[in-house]
Amino acid sequence: MTELLAGRLREVLPDEAVITDPVRLRTYECDGLTYHRATPGVVVLPETAEQVAAVVRLCQEFRVPFVARGSGTGLSGGALPRSDGVLIVTSRMRRILSVDLAARRAVVEPGVTNLAITEAVRDAGYYYAPDPSSQQICSIGGNIAENSGGAHCLKYGFTVNHVLALELVTPDGDIVELSAMDAGYDLLGAFIGSEGTLGIATKITVRLSRAPAAVTTMLAAFTTIEGGGRAVSAIIGAGIVPAAIEMMDALAIEAAEAAVRCEYPAGAGAVLVVELDGPEAEVEAQFALVDRICREAGAFEIRVAASAEERQAIWKGRKSAFAAVGRISPAYIVQDGVVPRTALPDVLAGIDRLQEEFGIRVANVFHAGDGNLHPLVLFDDAVEGEGERAELVSGRILDLCIEHGGSITGEHGVGVDKARYMPRMFTDEDLDTMQLVRCAFDPRYLSNPGKVFPTPRLCGEVPQVRKGPHPHEAELF
Amino acid sequence: MTELLAGRLREVLPDEAVITDPVRLRTYECDGLTYHRATPGVVVLPETAEQVAAVVRLCQEFRVPFVARGSGTGLSGGALPRSDGVLIVTSRMRRILSVDLAARRAVVEPGVTNLAITEAVRDAGYYYAPDPSSQQICSIGGNIAENSGGAHCLKYGFTVNHVLALELVTPDGDIVELSAMDAGYDLLGAFIGSEGTLGIATKITVRLSRAPAAVTTMLAAFTTIEGGGRAVSAIIGAGIVPAAIEMMDALAIEAAEAAVRCEYPAGAGAVLVVELDGPEAEVEAQFALVDRICREAGAFEIRVAASAEERQAIWKGRKSAFAAVGRISPAYIVQDGVVPRTALPDVLAGIDRLQEEFGIRVANVFHAGDGNLHPLVLFDDAVEGEGERAELVSGRILDLCIEHGGSITGEHGVGVDKARYMPRMFTDEDLDTMQLVRCAFDPRYLSNPGKVFPTPRLCGEVPQVRKGPHPHEAELF
Repeated sequence: MTELLAGRLREVLPDEAVITDPVRLRTYECDGLTYHRATPGVVVLPETAEQVAAVVRLCQEFRVPFVARGSGTGLSGGALPRSDGVLIVTSRMRRILSVDLAARRAVVEPGVTNLAITEAVRDAGYYYAPDPSSQQICSIGGNIAENSGGAHCLKYGFTVNHVLALELVTPDGDIVELSAMDAGYDLLGAFIGSEGTLGIATKITVRLSRAPAAVTTMLAAFTTIEGGGRAVSAIIGAGIVPAAIEMMDALAIEAAEAAVRCEYPAGAGAVLVVELDGPEAEVEAQFALVDRICREAGAFEIRVAASAEERQAIWKGRKSAFAAVGRISPAYIVQDGVVPRTALPDVLAGIDRLQEEFGIRVANVFHAGDGNLHPLVLFDDAVEGEGERAELVSGRILDLCIEHGGSITGEHGVGVDKARYMPRMFTDEDLDTMQLVRCAFDPRYLSNPGKVFPTPRLCGEVPQVRKGPHPHEAELF
Repeated sequence: MTELLAGRLREVLPDEAVITDPVRLRTYECDGLTYHRATPGVVVLPETAEQVAAVVRLCQEFRVPFVARGSGTGLSGGALPRSDGVLIVTSRMRRILSVDLAARRAVVEPGVTNLAITEAVRDAGYYYAPDPSSQQICSIGGNIAENSGGAHCLKYGFTVNHVLALELVTPDGDIVELSAMDAGYDLLGAFIGSEGTLGIATKITVRLSRAPAAVTTMLAAFTTIEGGGRAVSAIIGAGIVPAAIEMMDALAIEAAEAAVRCEYPAGAGAVLVVELDGPEAEVEAQFALVDRICREAGAFEIRVAASAEERQAIWKGRKSAFAAVGRISPAYIVQDGVVPRTALPDVLAGIDRLQEEFGIRVANVFHAGDGNLHPLVLFDDAVEGEGERAELVSGRILDLCIEHGGSITGEHGVGVDKARYMPRMFTDEDLDTMQLVRCAFDPRYLSNPGKVFPTPRLCGEVPQVRKGPHPHEAELF
C-alpha cells in the first residue's frame, strides 16, 4: 500500500521528490523539539502550489494524514511527522517571487527563510520585522503556522501583523486566497497560527518595514530580578515602547557566560537588554529617560553599544541563552508561556517556590515587555526521577501562567507537546467551538492530526455548502 | 405565532424588554443606511449575556432569524432587521465593568459607546484608539461587528487591533470566550468584522492606549488633487506614519464650506489634514519634514493648529463632510472602498472618467494614508434615471477598487448593501470557504441572515464534534 501511494505521488511530482528510503526518511523524524520522534511514512518535496494540492488530494483519496514541514526549527513538535502519513516538506519552494518597495510588500514561497526576506531588501532600507531567534534558518511558512514572534515583537507585532495575504492549499486540496484587505471573514488571522491544521500556505505576501533611522542598544545590570522587573514596569509606564526589552536571570547569565563569554557585568542578579529605535531625536530622548529609570530601579551598571559590534556583543548572550544552558545542565526543557506584564513578579515568585519544592533549577529568559517567559527547566537525565520532576515543574509553570490570566504558549505554539494542556485553559465548549472550525476545513481530520487539540474528535457529517433557497421561510409572521 | 414567541421571550427577559407594538417597532426599521428598511417582527432589550443567550435559544427553538443592533449607525445595513425575526438591541447593556490602567485594559458591555470608553479614562491620560466619525453614539458591539476604523487607524489600527478578548453568545445560544492570548485558533480575529453572522458579543475587553505627549494638526492646501497625492506618497515614503492623513477634493471642500463654514483656503483643489502625534521631539522633527514635503509637492498654504480650538476648526470641515454634501446635492450615496495607497492616483483618474461618462458628480473624501476612499456620489432623485446612474457609478467605483487590488469595503462593512458585490471580488470557492465557517457556527442560518454573503446557502448536515477514537487508523503502513 505504501508503494501504491508512493507510485501515485511520483506521477504528480518531479523526479527525486518522493522519498521512501528508510535512512533518508529518518532525517525528518523530528523538528526542533527532539523529544518527540516518528519516522514519516513518505516524504515529498513539491515545488509548486499545484503539486502541494495534488499531494493533498492523494492523501484524501487514500485517507492518510499529512503534515507540512518548513525548516524543522519549531519548538512544540508542530511538524512531528506521522508514521502512517505523508510529510510535505517545503524546502524546494524557496523563490522570492516579487518585491514591491513602493507598496512595501514582497511575495514569497513558504520555504524562503525569514532572514532571506530581509536580506533581499536590506540595501534599499527595508526589513521583515518578526525575528524569531532561529531567523537564519526558519521558514516563513513555519512562521505562519506558528504565528512566530521574536525579541522585537513587543513594538512591531507578530507574524499575523506582517502578513497581508496568503495563497493556501485547503485540506480538501483546493487552492484559495486569503487577504487582510478582504471583505467577509478575516480567515487570514485564523489561519495564521493554526499550526498546519487548516491547510498549507503556498504563497505569502508579507509587509516590508522601513529600517529605523537610529537604533540604541543598552544593557542594564541589576543585583536582583525584582529591580529589573521594576525597571520594565517603569519604562512601559512612562509610555515608551522599546523595540525590545529582554531579561535574563542569574542562572541564565551564568549559562551564557559559560557558553559564549558574553562578559555581562559580574554579580548581576538580572540583566535587561533594552533596544530603542526610531527617528534620531526620539531615540535620544527615550534613551535619556530609560537610563534614568534603570538607575532609579537599582541598575548598578549600564552599557550602551557604540557600534554594530558592541550591539552584537550585547545580543550574543541573550540569543545564545537557550543553547547555553547545555553548558550548565546535561538536559533541559525550554518552556514558553505568557502572562499579562503586570503579573510577571508574582509568576517569577511562583517559579522560585517550584524550584525549592521540587529541587529543580530554572533559568529564566524572557521577552519582559510583553510578558512572554521562556523558563529553561534544568535536569540531569542520569538521575532517576529528575526528568519526571522537571516535566512536572514545567507543567506547573504553565498552570501559573493560566492562573494569572495568561496562556500556555507565547510564541512556540501548542503542537504535539502542549495539546494535553489545552483543557487546563479551555472549557470543552471553547475547544468544541475551535474544532467546529477545524471540521469545516478538515472534516476527515487528515491535516496535521494530533496537534493543538488534546483529543481527536470526530466531525460528524461533513458540512457541505450548497446553493439553494433560504432554508427557513417566513413561517412565523 | 408572534404572540407565542413574544410570550416565551417575556418569560426570559425583564419587564418592558419585549417590544411588539407596531409603532415602536418601526423606530428600529433601519440603521445608518436608510435606503434599506424592514420592520422587525419583535424587538428585545436584554440586560445580560444570559438573557441574550436565552433569546437566541428561543430563536433556535422557533427557527426564526435574529439580528443584533447596537446604536444603529452602521452604513452598510448590517443591522437591518428581519420582519420575520427578532431584533436584539444592546442599548441596555451599557456598563463599563472594569478599568485596569496598570494592565491598560477595560472590560465593557456591547452597548457602551465608543467615546464613553475614552471618557472613562481620559483624565488618567489614556484613550481608546479606533475613532469612527460616529464615535459619540456608535456602540463598541457594533464596532466589533464591523471592525470599525476611523481617521486615526492609519497609525493605530482598526478595532481588531484593540480588542483583547470577547465573551460572546454563539448562534447556538452558548456563552463562550475568545482571547487574543489564546493558544489554538485565533477566532477573535475571525469574529471581529463578521457582521453579526457568527454570534453576538456580550462582553468586550479593549486595549487602552496612552494619550500622546504632543499632537500637531496641520492643513495643507493644494491647487490640484495630484499635488495632494504626491505629498501623501512622499510623507509615507519618508518613513513617517502620521496619526492621520485625510484628503478632500474641491467638491467636498465646497460642500463643507457651505455647511459648516470651515474656511479652508480659497481656491484649493484639494486639502490634506495631517496629524502627527508622539513624544514632543519626534513630533517637532516630523512636522518640519512634513511641512517641507508639502511645500515641495505644491502646497500654496499651510496652517498649523496652535490650540485645541484651532485643531477642532481644521477637523470640523473633514468630519462634517458626509452630511455636508446634503447642502450641494438633494441626495447622495456614501461609498466606501480601499486600494493599495500607490493605486490612489489611478483610481481617482478612473472616478473622473466615470463622472464624465455618466454626468454624475462625485465628491471625494478619503483616509489617504491607508488608501481608504469615501466617494460621495451625488444625484437628484427628482431627475428621472439619475438615481440609477448614481447607483451604477457607485458600483463602478468598487469595480475600480477591485481592479486595482483593493476591496469593496474599507471600514463600513458589507452588510446587506454590498453582499451583491462579493462575487466580483471572490470566486465561488473563496465564498464557500467562508460559508463553511459560517456553517460551523450557524448551521441553521439564523444569525443575521442575508448579510455579507450574496446567496443564502444551505449548510448540509449540521457538523457535530463528537469525542471518539481517531477516525482513521494506520491502515496504510
